[in-house]
Amino acid sequence: MKIDGKPFRTIWVADDGWSVAVIDQTLLPHRFEIMTLADLDDAARAISDMVVRGAPLIGATTAYGVALSMRQDCSDSGLASACDTLIATRPTAVNLRWALDQMRTHLAPLAPEERVDAAYAKAAAICDADVEISASIGRHGLALIEAAAAAKPTGEPVNVLTHCNAGWLATVDWGTATAPIYMAHDAGINVHVWVDETRPRNQGASLTAFELGQHGVPHTVIADNVGGHLMQQGQVDLCITGTDRTTAAGDVANKIGTYLKALAAQDNGVPFYVAVPSTTIDWSIEDGLAEIEIEQRSPDEVTIMSGLAEDGTVRSVRITPEGSPAANYAFDVTPARLVSGLITERGVCAASRTGLEALFADGAGPTP
Amino acid sequence: MKIDGKPFRTIWVADDGWSVAVIDQTLLPHRFEIMTLADLDDAARAISDMVVRGAPLIGATTAYGVALSMRQDCSDSGLASACDTLIATRPTAVNLRWALDQMRTHLAPLAPEERVDAAYAKAAAICDADVEISASIGRHGLALIEAAAAAKPTGEPVNVLTHCNAGWLATVDWGTATAPIYMAHDAGINVHVWVDETRPRNQGASLTAFELGQHGVPHTVIADNVGGHLMQQGQVDLCITGTDRTTAAGDVANKIGTYLKALAAQDNGVPFYVAVPSTTIDWSIEDGLAEIEIEQRSPDEVTIMSGLAEDGTVRSVRITPEGSPAANYAFDVTPARLVSGLITERGVCAASRTGLEALFADGAGPTP
Repeated sequence: MKIDGKPFRTIWVADDGWSVAVIDQTLLPHRFEIMTLADLDDAARAISDMVVRGAPLIGATTAYGVALSMRQDCSDSGLASACDTLIATRPTAVNLRWALDQMRTHLAPLAPEERVDAAYAKAAAICDADVEISASIGRHGLALIEAAAAAKPTGEPVNVLTHCNAGWLATVDWGTATAPIYMAHDAGINVHVWVDETRPRNQGASLTAFELGQHGVPHTVIADNVGGHLMQQGQVDLCITGTDRTTAAGDVANKIGTYLKALAAQDNGVPFYVAVPSTTIDWSIEDGLAEIEIEQRSPDEVTIMSGLAEDGTVRSVRITPEGSPAANYAFDVTPARLVSGLITERGVCAASRTGLEALFADGAGPTP
Repeated sequence: MKIDGKPFRTIWVADDGWSVAVIDQTLLPHRFEIMTLADLDDAARAISDMVVRGAPLIGATTAYGVALSMRQDCSDSGLASACDTLIATRPTAVNLRWALDQMRTHLAPLAPEERVDAAYAKAAAICDADVEISASIGRHGLALIEAAAAAKPTGEPVNVLTHCNAGWLATVDWGTATAPIYMAHDAGINVHVWVDETRPRNQGASLTAFELGQHGVPHTVIADNVGGHLMQQGQVDLCITGTDRTTAAGDVANKIGTYLKALAAQDNGVPFYVAVPSTTIDWSIEDGLAEIEIEQRSPDEVTIMSGLAEDGTVRSVRITPEGSPAANYAFDVTPARLVSGLITERGVCAASRTGLEALFADGAGPTP
């Protein structure tokens, strides 16, 4: 997508042909800076310091981290050591493990001297495959926005509400929930996005607002409390969110607060769609409420906010009284009954085992 | 309620017997300071600068503002001029107009030399009447918390979720939504409060957390996104919120986001109560969604947050990218169908015209 009018991915091989460039997302939305990763340690630090975030982008950075490490030591022990270093950065990240498995399986059988080129090629393939998943979700979701546009009086925007950042900054390009929006905008459809700020980490107010603004998509940031009112007043045509984990029955674990928007959508007859790359489907579980444990994160994310101070520096301020405890549940589960449809890379389906199995009879999505 | 172990109201006559003391709420929760109002202008500034806020407290401050003005000029023109000054501070505040009407009606027939004492007595009566309304709501709501406590395994806390600040800081004492909580806590019931931070102005994270903490009530601050998840997990026994305006049919206009919590409560079988001082009932309207216009406030409240910086000063930081617009709807309407009951100063009733009329056959609540 575009930054200041220029097309970008979130990760790419630099002009020198070997170092890896990423957008430093810790500085967004207040500063846009590109960070160059020159070796394995740079890549590991970019992941652990959240310079890159979002499951697909973590996977892509992991893959390029292995490629960079092969330049330093392409031996079997070098490969094993690189994998150990990368797995330690964010041990619970599913896409990180997946990318390491992909790279290791691909490189291990090769002669060491072949591994550098093969690693770069494989990392590029992983990135391209991710872009294709997002683009496919975009094409399938675009049809939903086109239908909404056709149902509106001429000239009125299609209002899409989204929560958190399932945007291109979390993937290699397009994003998941945002892909249909970008495709609609690029196709000339008058689309406007209500951006939930998404407390406590404000990924909506910072990242989603930033990427929509840079690409030129009309949008408005709102407090997370507002979406219900907007739906009551007919100001939302459809909701599209992402998902971190999708059960075989179509329950969706996504950023905390998603469930509340799904309830409001149901209460007001607003379609509620979830963009589901098949990599998020966990075929081993059915009942998201009973089977998905919800991560609790540091209370500091609730009590302390950071942003741009008047002096141009990024500062943190505490919003709660000293001594008041806070709790920070990171995700919630939206039951399938509240979800109008799942937008996957293979098409839109009902949020149910039947719906998912019809698209993924082979039990899995594409792998590069 | 208590601050640091010592009982306070939000407004009182100082030890000198005539000046008026208030808590400077603009400094909360980071500093507790008492401001002394010595004349009409002090009172007017306290209202316009939001040193005092909350409809009942604005009414009480207005009344004492008239009393202070009578010390300066107790003539008919002095009374008229004081009323003009005070009405200009927050022209749309219903309780301000109401308090002025009360004071003017009471003082106008009196001889000027009687007006100072009469004004102080009337202002004190207005404050006492407000405390009695809150205390009555507290007593009726206490029964609901007692019933919830009786239904829980011994030793487990009753978990109450509240939104915004319908607390004692918004009234003269007790608060409305908080009154049942304080009474339960003071009665030795193990009560714990989930405090919605209440973006964008954070009245929960700042004021409600502060007052509960100072009074010693166990509580936990949560992002507004969290309540649905807590209800899904059985961690909320009942919700109690306040209301800014209640229709004759029991629809409730309250702080933005209240509706989302009411939806979650219904979806999970959690009772959702609204504390309704009869002064908020607007008998002239039925359908809150159709008939209540929702105020939009400055987008700056969404994009800019203030809090305590590490250097001990209160600072503001911008959380959104430059150029991203924001919208700031201040209230939403919770339809009566989602409300389990209205806790009024005359008892708990169904959220319906029938329910309200059974308690308020005379069409209005008590006046001092």
